[in-house]
Amino acid sequence: MIFDLEKKCEGTKARAGKITTDHGVIETPIFMPVGTVGTVKGVHQRELKEEINPDIILGNTYHLYLRPQIDILEKAGGLHKFMNWDRNILTDSGGYQVYSLSDNRKIKEEGVKFKSHIDGSYHFFTPENVMDIQRSIGADIIMAFDECTPYPCDYSYAKRSMHMTHRWLDRCINRLNETEPKYGYEQTLFPIVQGSTYKDLRMQSAEYIANAGAAGNAIGGLSVGEPAEEMYAMTDVVCNILPEEKPRYLMGVGTPINILENIALGVDMFDCVMPTRNARNGMLFTAHGTINIKNKKWEDDFSPIDEMGITFVDTYYTKAYLRHLFAANEFLGKQIASIHNLGFYLWLVREARKHILAGDFSAWKNTMVQQMNKRL
Amino acid sequence: MIFDLEKKCEGTKARAGKITTDHGVIETPIFMPVGTVGTVKGVHQRELKEEINPDIILGNTYHLYLRPQIDILEKAGGLHKFMNWDRNILTDSGGYQVYSLSDNRKIKEEGVKFKSHIDGSYHFFTPENVMDIQRSIGADIIMAFDECTPYPCDYSYAKRSMHMTHRWLDRCINRLNETEPKYGYEQTLFPIVQGSTYKDLRMQSAEYIANAGAAGNAIGGLSVGEPAEEMYAMTDVVCNILPEEKPRYLMGVGTPINILENIALGVDMFDCVMPTRNARNGMLFTAHGTINIKNKKWEDDFSPIDEMGITFVDTYYTKAYLRHLFAANEFLGKQIASIHNLGFYLWLVREARKHILAGDFSAWKNTMVQQMNKRL
Ligand SMILES: [Zn+2]
Ligand SMILES: [Zn+2]
Repeated sequence: MIFDLEKKCEGTKARAGKITTDHGVIETPIFMPVGTVGTVKGVHQRELKEEINPDIILGNTYHLYLRPQIDILEKAGGLHKFMNWDRNILTDSGGYQVYSLSDNRKIKEEGVKFKSHIDGSYHFFTPENVMDIQRSIGADIIMAFDECTPYPCDYSYAKRSMHMTHRWLDRCINRLNETEPKYGYEQTLFPIVQGSTYKDLRMQSAEYIANAGAAGNAIGGLSVGEPAEEMYAMTDVVCNILPEEKPRYLMGVGTPINILENIALGVDMFDCVMPTRNARNGMLFTAHGTINIKNKKWEDDFSPIDEMGITFVDTYYTKAYLRHLFAANEFLGKQIASIHNLGFYLWLVREARKHILAGDFSAWKNTMVQQMNKRL
Repeated sequence: MIFDLEKKCEGTKARAGKITTDHGVIETPIFMPVGTVGTVKGVHQRELKEEINPDIILGNTYHLYLRPQIDILEKAGGLHKFMNWDRNILTDSGGYQVYSLSDNRKIKEEGVKFKSHIDGSYHFFTPENVMDIQRSIGADIIMAFDECTPYPCDYSYAKRSMHMTHRWLDRCINRLNETEPKYGYEQTLFPIVQGSTYKDLRMQSAEYIANAGAAGNAIGGLSVGEPAEEMYAMTDVVCNILPEEKPRYLMGVGTPINILENIALGVDMFDCVMPTRNARNGMLFTAHGTINIKNKKWEDDFSPIDEMGITFVDTYYTKAYLRHLFAANEFLGKQIASIHNLGFYLWLVREARKHILAGDFSAWKNTMVQQMNKRL
């Protein structure tokens, strides 16, 4: 993997760059649609490619490990072939999903024992076997196995947990050094900074992670319920320490506004279920604010879903029609809203990139943040 | 509406023809995908047009009347504009849906009082107001209001009901004569032959319907649970009486084999929820038999869904991937299966047409019926 830092914004810490892997170029800043279990929910791979057009999507190790399971993915020749996606894929490590199981998992130094949310069967994730699993899935960028702490989290727990995440990172790196990619292309590990909302822990963790010398770095444990200001404070502290010449990935963030603010702090990569999950609930993101398409006010509004026309659905269908689909509980409504929202998220990061390259990111960002902070 | 009978099969009663309306040409035999409430479930209008490519789809008056409701459809300028579909639309009359409500409707000479399946509110359908509703929806072909009898149905009930359907037809025709289309293009009424599974009633009804002199005729009250042989017997009797120079529409039929057998008896138009409903349950129709994609046997079958490649999904995705989507209860699975099945149904009727025009329909039909009568 190569990262080429193309341009730095003067007014903010935003950057534009290019990541090159064996599956092609990723222009940053980038938003990665979440393809949980080998599918971006309700969206055809062809629509994803042609309409939404991301350079990279994300898969969830925990979900893929349970279904279709690793032997099927190996027989298919990896996730790219299994789902017919020839661009980049990043897999998370399952750390976040396992943490979300709360009562159904037990975290020890060796690893995490957990109960499947599907059939209640017991499984054990360790830094070593999670690296093996990610070798089998075959993503281009793979994530270190970490513990994601809740919010709020007491200081001593956050500190203990952070050090365990660091020890786990060393085990991940050792395992990867002992093994080979399975499908003939390179896989790059990103370690994860933890430390909850404690500035001193975040600094310690960022230094540890930076010293690991990985080709890219991630920030985890945010967007777990803390106020946006705390998130920005932590991103800021961490980005000041993580090396400039490597891409920075902020995991699980967030709203369109969160994304612009974090780009301004030096983040290059994002993922979040929000555009698709909110779409399925009838919430649309636009450049001029959010729309709850279920509201009666759209019932006879025959204007296009979004005049910007970023994806084909935006001008193909009207607000009244989309509102009707949600009222009638027709799945096509969720499909349309998902394509719209993902298209908007990708437009947003592409536009951010353009403005970074053009040198006017800061002003554009401030206008956009104001514009988007409305309910239509 | 113009019907041009292009060719008659010599070995069977199959025909190839062309219906021309203000929304274009419908090549027959044709299968009409069911767009219940202004959407073919799980399928984008663009995919419907470009991948499945029917000349006409069907909308349900009962469902559209309840949601989005008639005032919204009028404000939109009719269903074509509301759902952004510029080809032909046929609407049923609500007779079948109202009949399906069983305990929640009361049939009298004046009309049918029924309870909405959505909110339990009471409504009243008469031949007159159903014509008005279909004027507001604005389909190109609209159906007479009829009573659809159940199977089995005792002779005296079937006879009484048939005569009421005939009286209702006269009322429908009178109402249409008193009213105008609302959106500047022609609407054509198809009356409906009833008579349950009684040959003499079917003959009487076919004669009554034929005498009404409509531009096209329909056969209702079949595919309601009777054996296929009884359905074919009734279609045969009726097609021998309905005028040759007008299109014949067999409502609610059926499996791919049912469709070919009824084409051989002289039917030109079909509709059925089977391709989409079965798709959502993981059942795929192919030229070589049916596939239950949920079966474990497909788990590691990485061959294309259907090598025939009628629609893009057939070769874009593998059986193993589609099986995984169903196992993980991912909606994309239902989307893929719906496109596949509808694509196959349209391929089947297009192919039937080609063979009628080429003069070898009978042999082709027999081979196809044998081939398709298998579980893969
Ligand atoms: Zn440490
Ligand atoms: Zn009669």
